[in-house]
Amino acid sequence: MSRAADWSLYLVTDRRLTGGRPLEEIVLAAARGGVTAVQLREKDAPARQFVELARRLKAVLTPLDVPLIINDRLDVALAAGADGVHIGQSDLAIADVRRIAGPDLLVGLTVESMDQAMEAEDLDPDYLGVSPIFATPTKTDTGAPWGIQGLAALRARSRHVLVAIGGLSHSNAGQVMRAGADGIAVVSAICSAPDPEAAARELKRSLSRKG
Amino acid sequence: MSRAADWSLYLVTDRRLTGGRPLEEIVLAAARGGVTAVQLREKDAPARQFVELARRLKAVLTPLDVPLIINDRLDVALAAGADGVHIGQSDLAIADVRRIAGPDLLVGLTVESMDQAMEAEDLDPDYLGVSPIFATPTKTDTGAPWGIQGLAALRARSRHVLVAIGGLSHSNAGQVMRAGADGIAVVSAICSAPDPEAAARELKRSLSRKG
Repeated sequence: MSRAADWSLYLVTDRRLTGGRPLEEIVLAAARGGVTAVQLREKDAPARQFVELARRLKAVLTPLDVPLIINDRLDVALAAGADGVHIGQSDLAIADVRRIAGPDLLVGLTVESMDQAMEAEDLDPDYLGVSPIFATPTKTDTGAPWGIQGLAALRARSRHVLVAIGGLSHSNAGQVMRAGADGIAVVSAICSAPDPEAAARELKRSLSRKG
Repeated sequence: MSRAADWSLYLVTDRRLTGGRPLEEIVLAAARGGVTAVQLREKDAPARQFVELARRLKAVLTPLDVPLIINDRLDVALAAGADGVHIGQSDLAIADVRRIAGPDLLVGLTVESMDQAMEAEDLDPDYLGVSPIFATPTKTDTGAPWGIQGLAALRARSRHVLVAIGGLSHSNAGQVMRAGADGIAVVSAICSAPDPEAAARELKRSLSRKG
């Protein structure tokens, strides 16, 4: 997996939102619909189960050349042969991740404020997860929303790839991209969709929509 | 740190039991009192805080040549430069740990039944944590207690170093050692003690006690 990944349409998983459908099924459909990266987020799964699930997703995604990113747990990412890890402000430090895993592992970092984003100017994440753009019911432990103006202000000040997350759908994705995002990350817009492939396809189209 | 560690008196931490005293203070006192290994167990701490705490304990323990083992999170162990990781049946697989961390990291494995212990005959842990020997209020998600007879039966069948844990104190440590344990692990017997150094010293003496 090259370090130059495509973050334009990034699926972040939430097994609670799939309506009982297996995550592999959702992820495969989403990748067929145009998702360019997948983050496996498991807040409660024991590590062994987390690794097993990651391996199943990796097997689905590798043939489609879509990178798999693991939320928080670098050890799970390494055990499963995932392509990267996504860390929050209270997870491992990027310097520790790089030291343990080397330069080839993709590393994403959540920033929830301009202060955090400016601190990240001295770090070397592969992208910043700019969270949340809008208020969202999926994550309730987040900071104040960036909004479109906050995202545009960050775009003007950050050298990093910016992936917007939080409350995004096909109806606002174009606006978010025009404000300077390099990509959007979605959870419920795909995980909860009756047809995740169609949902991904609609999101993909909306990225370049003008209206 | 050599692979031939001394597991005879193994402190497993629980910050809820220290009565507000800093964990470094408990751990330093315990090491001075004769603890031969320390496991940092943090079930709820975010990874960054876990790493910082591990580094503080490592700084305390390294001068005393006492190894620091991290519960569950291999990534935290690697980030903090700890000497080992302790894994349960639902944590990472030993083979994955060895593949990621190499042969020098100490690896302990919890076994809660004879079946699990016999499966471990084909694995290469540095020790088995035989849990629980007696019923204990510290951990409530454990299997049925091994008891002294179960421990003796395991000793006869296992090639591994056996560290007994669960309900152990200076009053039963000698009996557990005579049943075949290579060491005992304690939580509350040291973490909750008004004088952790004296508690460790008393436990140390009790390991060779006949009565």
